[in-house]
Amino acid sequence: MAYLRKLDLAIESARKLARIGASTNLVNLLRKMRPADVAVIFGNLTDGERLFALRSLLKQDGDFVASTLSEMPPEEAASLLAHLEPETIADLLQKIPVDDATQITSKLPPELVERVLELMHVARSVDVVDQLQFEENTAGRIMNPHVFALHEDMTVGEAISTLQRKSDELEMVFYLYVVDDRHHLVGVVSLRQLLLNPPSTPLRKIMSTDVISVHTSTDQEEVARVVSKYDLMAVPVVDDENRLVGIVTVDDVIDVLQEELTEDYFRMVGSDAAELERRTPTEIARLRLPWLLMTVLIELIAGAVIHRFDDTLGTVILLASFMPVIQAISGNTGLQSATIVVRGLATGHISLKDWWRPVARQLRTTLILGGILGALIFFVGGLWHGWQRMAERGTWFDPVFGFVVGFSMFVAINLSGFVGTVIPMISKRLGFDPALTAGPFETAFQDVVSVTIMLGLATLLLQWMA
Amino acid sequence: MAYLRKLDLAIESARKLARIGASTNLVNLLRKMRPADVAVIFGNLTDGERLFALRSLLKQDGDFVASTLSEMPPEEAASLLAHLEPETIADLLQKIPVDDATQITSKLPPELVERVLELMHVARSVDVVDQLQFEENTAGRIMNPHVFALHEDMTVGEAISTLQRKSDELEMVFYLYVVDDRHHLVGVVSLRQLLLNPPSTPLRKIMSTDVISVHTSTDQEEVARVVSKYDLMAVPVVDDENRLVGIVTVDDVIDVLQEELTEDYFRMVGSDAAELERRTPTEIARLRLPWLLMTVLIELIAGAVIHRFDDTLGTVILLASFMPVIQAISGNTGLQSATIVVRGLATGHISLKDWWRPVARQLRTTLILGGILGALIFFVGGLWHGWQRMAERGTWFDPVFGFVVGFSMFVAINLSGFVGTVIPMISKRLGFDPALTAGPFETAFQDVVSVTIMLGLATLLLQWMA
Repeated sequence: MAYLRKLDLAIESARKLARIGASTNLVNLLRKMRPADVAVIFGNLTDGERLFALRSLLKQDGDFVASTLSEMPPEEAASLLAHLEPETIADLLQKIPVDDATQITSKLPPELVERVLELMHVARSVDVVDQLQFEENTAGRIMNPHVFALHEDMTVGEAISTLQRKSDELEMVFYLYVVDDRHHLVGVVSLRQLLLNPPSTPLRKIMSTDVISVHTSTDQEEVARVVSKYDLMAVPVVDDENRLVGIVTVDDVIDVLQEELTEDYFRMVGSDAAELERRTPTEIARLRLPWLLMTVLIELIAGAVIHRFDDTLGTVILLASFMPVIQAISGNTGLQSATIVVRGLATGHISLKDWWRPVARQLRTTLILGGILGALIFFVGGLWHGWQRMAERGTWFDPVFGFVVGFSMFVAINLSGFVGTVIPMISKRLGFDPALTAGPFETAFQDVVSVTIMLGLATLLLQWMA
Repeated sequence: MAYLRKLDLAIESARKLARIGASTNLVNLLRKMRPADVAVIFGNLTDGERLFALRSLLKQDGDFVASTLSEMPPEEAASLLAHLEPETIADLLQKIPVDDATQITSKLPPELVERVLELMHVARSVDVVDQLQFEENTAGRIMNPHVFALHEDMTVGEAISTLQRKSDELEMVFYLYVVDDRHHLVGVVSLRQLLLNPPSTPLRKIMSTDVISVHTSTDQEEVARVVSKYDLMAVPVVDDENRLVGIVTVDDVIDVLQEELTEDYFRMVGSDAAELERRTPTEIARLRLPWLLMTVLIELIAGAVIHRFDDTLGTVILLASFMPVIQAISGNTGLQSATIVVRGLATGHISLKDWWRPVARQLRTTLILGGILGALIFFVGGLWHGWQRMAERGTWFDPVFGFVVGFSMFVAINLSGFVGTVIPMISKRLGFDPALTAGPFETAFQDVVSVTIMLGLATLLLQWMA
């Protein structure tokens, strides 16, 4: 697309200019762009180039740097700021909205946080400290505490003039929240309603009292769901006593939604979204290792099971050739079912109360899939082992071998569909993250089960196959 | 959360009332709720309950039904409407915004579409037909063509009175787009700016000419990215001649983002987001089957490879016990790498031009992981085979067996990290969907490769192990 192509060109130019140290040209290039674009460009520079660009920009236009920081992911902004003097950091953080400043502050190295807070204006640092007291990933932490509220006794005319007077302090105004004497949230009016009603109308008359709000402790994912479900542009945040304390706008919600969806997605494969950001390979390896070690452990159990059946395997060595296909298909079916259930739980499509509904759906699906693939493997296996032993047995088809591999396939597919459905639901009920228990664990578990089924069945029927 | 708990209760009550046919009570319950909530409730009813609820509501309050339909996923709304008379469908579709009506119409059975369009008011059906001419998943298809535009020669006062006059026709107004005589998009003003400037100011003076817009043919994912990147509440849509033809609002963008993220997520495991919706198990099985059959095929190649090494396997049967762990870990590493790259490509974190950067990152990670896990498997394998043959060989550790399984693990992990990184990038370059080529295909491929490495190596070193 045009936008992204232009941006690609800008990234390339920025990198070249940074590499040759052309400070003035680089600043001229960046200042012609929107802060959101500059944030993307920063994300595509190496650490050295980025720091050079930052220092060059800082010398010319601190406000522009502040706007850019506010558009960057907080971790990225914090790791970049950490290279600067505490005075400069405090100064920059004062120029951006409190919620963004808080997010960035929370990601700064702890020893730096204290120093930076000391250097900020008292009012701002109090705001940041206040907001840091809410837990991470809650409405309190992501809200903007500077919410525009009007008293219920005001008239439309008074509201408009208040709005005109205070407009430069406000980030963006979509809804005007109405409060009573004790700052309780009692209603909402829109800018449009202000325009459409005569100036003498009291707000109380035109406000809607049916306000959707969230609590400071509401999880950010929940906030995002409320905003997206009711197609809101912003949602007010209230404390225990229903006092209006902040506002979360839809642009922050989009970031949350992307973050949460991406996280689920990564967790399913035992990986981590943070890999895309600035982690080193060593850190990534450390993150992934526990999962892989657990997989190794479970797969070694599968190995032990196989070892237990060495005699069977030694007698009918072709069984080894069918191990991968049965493991892969049952692992895959389990992962598919788990994905459906994990997403369904996240979006609310699946509720724990009706746990049997997805189970029944998955079972009907896996019965069909297991039937088709089981039959296929029955024929392939029967033919393969039959041909191989044609000389001894005088027949080109071995129904017993076919049955062992085909029936194992059928059972393994159904079992993994069932387990893949049930495990995420049980995890959720027990309070774990369903996305975490799916993925590698699920696959490894299926491997143990499918190998046990096949080799166990083969051992039972060994005398008819050997 | 409070909201969702309340909703859960409402779902339960609605189902009970629908089951006992308590039409009046059901309608009373639903009409007390917001249309967005009723849409969620509908999604949780069985087909029969849903149709009963729809018919009951229709008798009392067609407008409410229309609002609810507009909040439902278009496929769901269409499949529900398909049970009604064409006259009723046309009537309902006239009551909702054109973009939603178009989305729903496009999902109706073709034979019904024509009939419904005939029955609509001409103006509305022309709108819908117009919009259906844009391709699916483009800005043209998801935009609302009724965009509020002001002429550049207007004053602030005139703009406000136009706004007041036309307000009931408009869904929601965030930005007021300014056009010239030929309806070219030339600028934008905000509601706030209208409030803050004296009535006699011409719009031309206060408008910003730096308007971010998208083209009717822009892919919806791209539209979503533009809106989310620049934190917009809406983006104007223009045609080839830069004439303003529509607007896409942020609430539609949220739906697009969720849809696209979820789709990638499902494609990675060879599944389909539509499973969550109203597909039958047979349809799901048909969707999944091609993937599974391809996996079977590739895994049977792995089987053939194993068969080729029957002698080796027969001599050192313990090798069979290490097949699952090597396959699982290399498959998992490949899938993790692929996930990172697929997400990175989707979000723009990874660009094809710098293809070597993610490859280098992944390689550094897999070298560490492969080193640790290879060493682990070296010791486990060496001990296991050593103990087993202690009597014959007089030593409790077999370094050759350990080397075969440990080194195979090391190579397999690095190779799958590389392949998992490169395949999605090659797919993207060739114009395929990177998410599709990851997942099952990747895993199956790794199985073939890892088995080949291990058994090939074992055969080479057979004389020192047997």
